[in-house]
Amino acid sequence: MPADYKDNTGYHLKHLFIGSEGTLGFVTKVAVQCPTKPNCQNLAFLGLDTYENVLETFKASKGCLSEILSATEVIDRESMDVVREHLNLRSPIGEYPYYLLVETSGSRDEHDQDKLNRFVEMCLEKGFILGGTVVTEPSKFKDIWSIREKIPETFKREGYVFCYDFTLPLQNYYKLVHEMRQYMGDRAHRVFGFGHLGDGNLHLQISVKEFDRDVVDYIEPHIFNRVKEMKGSISSEHGIGFLKAKYLPMIKDPSAVQLMRHLKASLDPNGILNPYKIFYHS
Amino acid sequence: MPADYKDNTGYHLKHLFIGSEGTLGFVTKVAVQCPTKPNCQNLAFLGLDTYENVLETFKASKGCLSEILSATEVIDRESMDVVREHLNLRSPIGEYPYYLLVETSGSRDEHDQDKLNRFVEMCLEKGFILGGTVVTEPSKFKDIWSIREKIPETFKREGYVFCYDFTLPLQNYYKLVHEMRQYMGDRAHRVFGFGHLGDGNLHLQISVKEFDRDVVDYIEPHIFNRVKEMKGSISSEHGIGFLKAKYLPMIKDPSAVQLMRHLKASLDPNGILNPYKIFYHS
Repeated sequence: MPADYKDNTGYHLKHLFIGSEGTLGFVTKVAVQCPTKPNCQNLAFLGLDTYENVLETFKASKGCLSEILSATEVIDRESMDVVREHLNLRSPIGEYPYYLLVETSGSRDEHDQDKLNRFVEMCLEKGFILGGTVVTEPSKFKDIWSIREKIPETFKREGYVFCYDFTLPLQNYYKLVHEMRQYMGDRAHRVFGFGHLGDGNLHLQISVKEFDRDVVDYIEPHIFNRVKEMKGSISSEHGIGFLKAKYLPMIKDPSAVQLMRHLKASLDPNGILNPYKIFYHS
Repeated sequence: MPADYKDNTGYHLKHLFIGSEGTLGFVTKVAVQCPTKPNCQNLAFLGLDTYENVLETFKASKGCLSEILSATEVIDRESMDVVREHLNLRSPIGEYPYYLLVETSGSRDEHDQDKLNRFVEMCLEKGFILGGTVVTEPSKFKDIWSIREKIPETFKREGYVFCYDFTLPLQNYYKLVHEMRQYMGDRAHRVFGFGHLGDGNLHLQISVKEFDRDVVDYIEPHIFNRVKEMKGSISSEHGIGFLKAKYLPMIKDPSAVQLMRHLKASLDPNGILNPYKIFYHS
């Protein structure tokens, strides 16, 4: 049977283990279901002036592209500066405060290109975007994706970089980057943001000359508190692990933490499964 | 935040409660995320001669319709007999051993109709289907869906009906209906099958003159055993509840049942949450 086949015979144990970071047990066998590769993929790379227009364009993409919309990635000017300075990669459409990479995946190329072209025309007409390009050629498609994908590679060349991985409601998504830029002032070399806008997932990065414990204490727990106040998650993809364990009681409802501890204690009474992770023991 | 926003801060407690049938706790607050209504919906209603061709047609629909494929429902001849006899509903395309209802949902009507028409033409050319109709008009769309949706309504008029809700690998999906028809012989008035083929979800129904304990014992646990042997699930949607609790140890791995009992005992040590459900206590 496929890995996600419909089955309602009792508790969904698989989901209890997903995201438990090895603290409840270990995986000895896996069934992987592979989706079919889409027939065609295209993208639009767009330049925008304000975050409000990023949101308008995203909303328009949901309407115009709907079932073929497969990724919406945002890159801010500072992230583009980072890849230009360190990797000599350049925006193919000139300089803008924000960039959006909108990808489509579907089964009929002419239909998808028609939808994508109309979407970009509409955004230009309505003034949501200042410029952009539609890319249908596979090698150019890869080139543009590599701008987005290589932002993390530059970390090693930017002194020390504090990397955060948040989920935020879209109205607060970029607000946090603005706020942190102000909050950091001269303490940071650069504060930049990029990520999976379609998932509400922001990678917020703060680069400094070198690692400094005082800077960590200045950033944390302040930043996690702000994410909580903005009704977000302090870990969208990367988990709690070791470094964020002490903030768990701060960001989660006490009854949820209590239930988690209860589950941990009942499945691993001796605390031998991936110790020190998720729960703080000091 | 949306109900399914990305959050990896600890155990996914929501998933532990989904499908637990009230045996671990109760829900006091819910966030519901509503997807946007699709701009357009169309369907094809197809007539087929063999289950092998049902599978070929389903496979073709995944390729041709891909991202706009929103439902694939199968109805067998006997299910169509039931709605004709009791509700005077008729197949709009004549009589066939199997029917498929293939629904599309998308953002651009002309694209979707183009894809759907090509799909039906291809299936006719390849001999996967014997006949069919493409429906784009909303009132006709509803009429055809109502044939499928009214099959359960006829239960009250068919004497007593034993209703099953299985997930089966597609190669075994209809095999079980054939088998049960033979197995039941004169004991049943009718054995019929319909359901969400796209999910591997089969509603297998056995109608008899009136409820009889001996017939239940003849059907069960035999039918659950066959589903297990065919690598399926004895409950695709409806849960374990009260009636299937005693079969849980038969169909599930002992370590999974043990872990479920352990979770139950640790979250509900007094056994007061929806007792007698899922776990058998005799």
